[in-house]
Amino acid sequence: MTDDHTTDDRSQDEREPLFARIPRRDFVKAGAATGTLTSMAGCTGLLDGGDGAATGGSVDADVPPGEHDEYYGILSGGHSGEIRVYGIPSMRQLMRIPVFNRESARGYGYDDETREMLENAGGYTWGDTHHPRVSQTDNDYDGRWAFVNDKANGRMARIDLTYFETDAIVDIPNQQGTHGACCLLPDTKYVFGVGEFRVPMRNDGRDLDDPDSYTSVLAAIDPETMDVAWEVEVDGNMDNGDGGKEGRWFFATGYNSEGAVTESGMAEADTDWVKAFDVPAIEEAVDAGEYEEIGGVPVVDGTRDSPLNDGDRPVVRYVDVPKSPHGVSVTPDGQYAIASGKLDPTASIVDVETLADADDPNEAVVGRPRLGMGPLHTAYDGRGHAYTTLFIDSQVVKWDIEAAVDAEAESEDPIVEKIDVHYNPGHLIAAESYTADPQGDWLISLNKLSKDRFLPVGPMHPENDQLIYIGDDEEGMQLVKDTPAYAEPHDASIVHKSKLDPAKTYDPADLDLDPIDSGSMDIERDDGGVHVKMTAQRNEFGYQDVTVQEGDEVTFTVTNVETSADLLHSLAIPEHDINVKVAPQETREVTFTADEPGVYWMYCGFFCSALHLEMRSRLLVEPAE
Amino acid sequence: MTDDHTTDDRSQDEREPLFARIPRRDFVKAGAATGTLTSMAGCTGLLDGGDGAATGGSVDADVPPGEHDEYYGILSGGHSGEIRVYGIPSMRQLMRIPVFNRESARGYGYDDETREMLENAGGYTWGDTHHPRVSQTDNDYDGRWAFVNDKANGRMARIDLTYFETDAIVDIPNQQGTHGACCLLPDTKYVFGVGEFRVPMRNDGRDLDDPDSYTSVLAAIDPETMDVAWEVEVDGNMDNGDGGKEGRWFFATGYNSEGAVTESGMAEADTDWVKAFDVPAIEEAVDAGEYEEIGGVPVVDGTRDSPLNDGDRPVVRYVDVPKSPHGVSVTPDGQYAIASGKLDPTASIVDVETLADADDPNEAVVGRPRLGMGPLHTAYDGRGHAYTTLFIDSQVVKWDIEAAVDAEAESEDPIVEKIDVHYNPGHLIAAESYTADPQGDWLISLNKLSKDRFLPVGPMHPENDQLIYIGDDEEGMQLVKDTPAYAEPHDASIVHKSKLDPAKTYDPADLDLDPIDSGSMDIERDDGGVHVKMTAQRNEFGYQDVTVQEGDEVTFTVTNVETSADLLHSLAIPEHDINVKVAPQETREVTFTADEPGVYWMYCGFFCSALHLEMRSRLLVEPAE
Repeated sequence: MTDDHTTDDRSQDEREPLFARIPRRDFVKAGAATGTLTSMAGCTGLLDGGDGAATGGSVDADVPPGEHDEYYGILSGGHSGEIRVYGIPSMRQLMRIPVFNRESARGYGYDDETREMLENAGGYTWGDTHHPRVSQTDNDYDGRWAFVNDKANGRMARIDLTYFETDAIVDIPNQQGTHGACCLLPDTKYVFGVGEFRVPMRNDGRDLDDPDSYTSVLAAIDPETMDVAWEVEVDGNMDNGDGGKEGRWFFATGYNSEGAVTESGMAEADTDWVKAFDVPAIEEAVDAGEYEEIGGVPVVDGTRDSPLNDGDRPVVRYVDVPKSPHGVSVTPDGQYAIASGKLDPTASIVDVETLADADDPNEAVVGRPRLGMGPLHTAYDGRGHAYTTLFIDSQVVKWDIEAAVDAEAESEDPIVEKIDVHYNPGHLIAAESYTADPQGDWLISLNKLSKDRFLPVGPMHPENDQLIYIGDDEEGMQLVKDTPAYAEPHDASIVHKSKLDPAKTYDPADLDLDPIDSGSMDIERDDGGVHVKMTAQRNEFGYQDVTVQEGDEVTFTVTNVETSADLLHSLAIPEHDINVKVAPQETREVTFTADEPGVYWMYCGFFCSALHLEMRSRLLVEPAE
Repeated sequence: MTDDHTTDDRSQDEREPLFARIPRRDFVKAGAATGTLTSMAGCTGLLDGGDGAATGGSVDADVPPGEHDEYYGILSGGHSGEIRVYGIPSMRQLMRIPVFNRESARGYGYDDETREMLENAGGYTWGDTHHPRVSQTDNDYDGRWAFVNDKANGRMARIDLTYFETDAIVDIPNQQGTHGACCLLPDTKYVFGVGEFRVPMRNDGRDLDDPDSYTSVLAAIDPETMDVAWEVEVDGNMDNGDGGKEGRWFFATGYNSEGAVTESGMAEADTDWVKAFDVPAIEEAVDAGEYEEIGGVPVVDGTRDSPLNDGDRPVVRYVDVPKSPHGVSVTPDGQYAIASGKLDPTASIVDVETLADADDPNEAVVGRPRLGMGPLHTAYDGRGHAYTTLFIDSQVVKWDIEAAVDAEAESEDPIVEKIDVHYNPGHLIAAESYTADPQGDWLISLNKLSKDRFLPVGPMHPENDQLIYIGDDEEGMQLVKDTPAYAEPHDASIVHKSKLDPAKTYDPADLDLDPIDSGSMDIERDDGGVHVKMTAQRNEFGYQDVTVQEGDEVTFTVTNVETSADLLHSLAIPEHDINVKVAPQETREVTFTADEPGVYWMYCGFFCSALHLEMRSRLLVEPAE
């Protein structure tokens, strides 16, 4: 099924020492006392999901024409740089939200405001979005924002969920490769950017080939201002992260505790870490001035040798886990942080309460079930089950969390069932899994390869987001839909429709620009500049023609004066690389230099009425004297 | 349902003179002799499709997990600048193909080759794709190419359907706003770019505000070389187009025969034209040197007063049709070109054979059924029916072509049934409707507004591509699926899966660059430049680190040496705005200046293996002395 040769060929004995550090509480023998374990025999049919025969015919995932989905899926778009909004369970893509990419249909990166936002955030034309997380209040979605990282350029973006548009991007100092993105719960006090790539702290050419001096940081970002409040420097790199439910802990996995700079070197050690950041302790250190200001932000030393890790209240606790752990997620009740082994077939269960009290953070590891090959990420159904993707096995494994805590080390007993997915899953996400109260019905496995699952479309294949019903513990997991996806939906959040309240038209009070109406239409001219303020409505722009001089700096401020939802216009200017969208009651501005004499037919890019084609005006650029 | 107030309020008497020019052959009274008319009463339920109750429950449009669709849908993306590939009937989006836009997940516009292609075609970062048409041989899809226009910048692009990627773009001289895009059939001798916007022929500042001197051209493009073979200058602007099946005729509609430059002026006249281009006659004129070379291409004078339109074999015939006609499409048998009235409730049926023989081209109009408000585009099922979108009525009307030819002028008798769509349809497309042998089962109505059909996602709504089953004349049209679509799928072609043969990996012989293997890996340095030739494969790039000097021009040539399908890699370089995709057996090259000293972790953007995160190499940029 896959050509991967990554296997864990260490013997049980070789691995045992890792687990021996875990305090074994109430271990029970396989098959006994776990209660919720269902018979593996009963699941055999489901394990055949791959042939299509075992797919869930009894599950109603139809959303007939005109009916609405139950959930919003907010998916990242990987190195496409965008966010995508799906309806679930239909798996229809409802909208794209450009984030780090320029996108012309939406005019994103074309009007002055969004162009300046992108320029101020580094001026890149793409980014690598991985982990879209939605803001919460009291451990439940509050409908305000989604946040997403840029792994390529060390940035974090905020998406306004009233208007479904990117409204802020911060270029994170001292961080190359922001990988994890996560909120501190219960109330989204911070958004964390988790630094993956180790580089010199001042990456300006010094310490160039001195990997021992490389470092990585966790960045805490204020969600309101999108400023970096503080950073914590750590040993090793970091990978994924998740916030505890109680406002104290933030957890991050990381491979490469070796500090290596080669692929083989990074996979050498048998253990790496879950890093547990004690947020109030870090805030105390910042308040006490125990930081160095670098790149304009306070950087707290959270490395293992830091004096701040030497007392009763270390700022970062390093928990040993096998091997290059990848995903980490906190259970809905906030009791455990579960980290997947990636290069080890187990997941490590970190008890949050124990972590706070124990002298040795390794005592907090209270379970380590053997799940299968390549465990990456874990989601929850709110009924005590965890669902973990197995990248190499191309499966999702459902397991019982308390049974795993109670079981032998590396026991397979906590496993409830496995289902084949197609193929090589990365993240998975269950409905509201990141809240205190998951819905427990739908799960999406974000599979990196699709191979033969769809009509061929050339060497670049779609990925495959598979919808799995997890609402029936008796019937087991049921594969419902294959969904081809453009590279690369990396992670997702699933939010019940009742939690969001999107606007259908703009409230002008929410915009920076004053709206233009028929009374404020104007063409202002001064030396070298022309400012056109005009309306857009069916079927015409406010001016039928605008004359400027070659070399003029021209600004158009355009208001869509429609009040009906869904009646958008744009100002497209041929041969000027301009297309600015204006939704109902929206005002946007675009500035350019008119450097080529001629007639240009500005037109509306949205098919807005029967006279849409006639909605066009002339830009007349007169030759310079 | 819509706020449009566009109505045809002329009386029947006022319109009669238009139709009086049509030779009335074998008119029959309403309801008689048409044969294929079904009872309108029987269709009442279907007209209620909007409430979901009348949707086609009996139609099997399910494509279960692991099963393939029957058809490829090749849709344009409007001002997103791209092409999208759907599976039909699942309506799943299988792939995006960037065309006029830069797209980072695919590295399109980032590697040297595609960046140069876009720069040589004007350097714009977006375009406005409307009409994707697939190449044919002997009036059937041959699987070679798709073509699509750029309305914003006067361009035409070619998409290679072996690799599903854009492989050529021509910036069309003398044309601003390429609207229609169509092949000359039966064998795709030319691809036509239909010029919409009238501007001065030499648009460099002369004749700036002299609309009488404005003009528009039809451009004939060689599909092999993508060079413009010749152009024809015409009166009025042009809009959509379609090629005849016999290699002689190309038809284009156009509004604004008035030559106006205001919205009201463009809608003034009661008639505009279908222009019928006589391709062999034009070729003869070109061969005879009867052209002016402008912008590097031969431009033939096809205006009404042209001497070339004065003889027995005019190069362009102007057929009067009401009013601002929009879509035109040729019936599968090649007998008729049908043009929709847009601002008139009728469609005009042009008999192709009559057109060739008649002295007065208006004699070729052999039918003019009254279809409803805002008729825009027409598709065919191969069983004698036409399906026309009614933008203002938000309906698709099914009608009988021969019955319309036989009926009274402006009769509604040829109408078989109407179905509500949601809302305001632009184009529609039936399976293989553009070939000589439509499949007659699936039809997609590309509706511009979705209003309340999906979960709200902010002021920018998705459009709604509705799948309608047309395979059962007894049951009538059945609405099967609503599909939200990002702005704006403008038009489509539907191709049976048996007609395409996409490659799953690259054939190096098809690429411009020599592949790199372990034997040809190299780092070449010369004064001011570094050329790195390296492989990419699971889980590493050919070099673990590359050292360059600040200011160096750096080129990476990268070959993905995988042979397994679906195992892609990319070369992402943080803070350098670079992401270059390499699919299996593909070689790409990227050149940039290393202008900031520091350590940059180049990484693979495609999740390719369990050690994907470890697939990264250092770019070390040493500070200048």
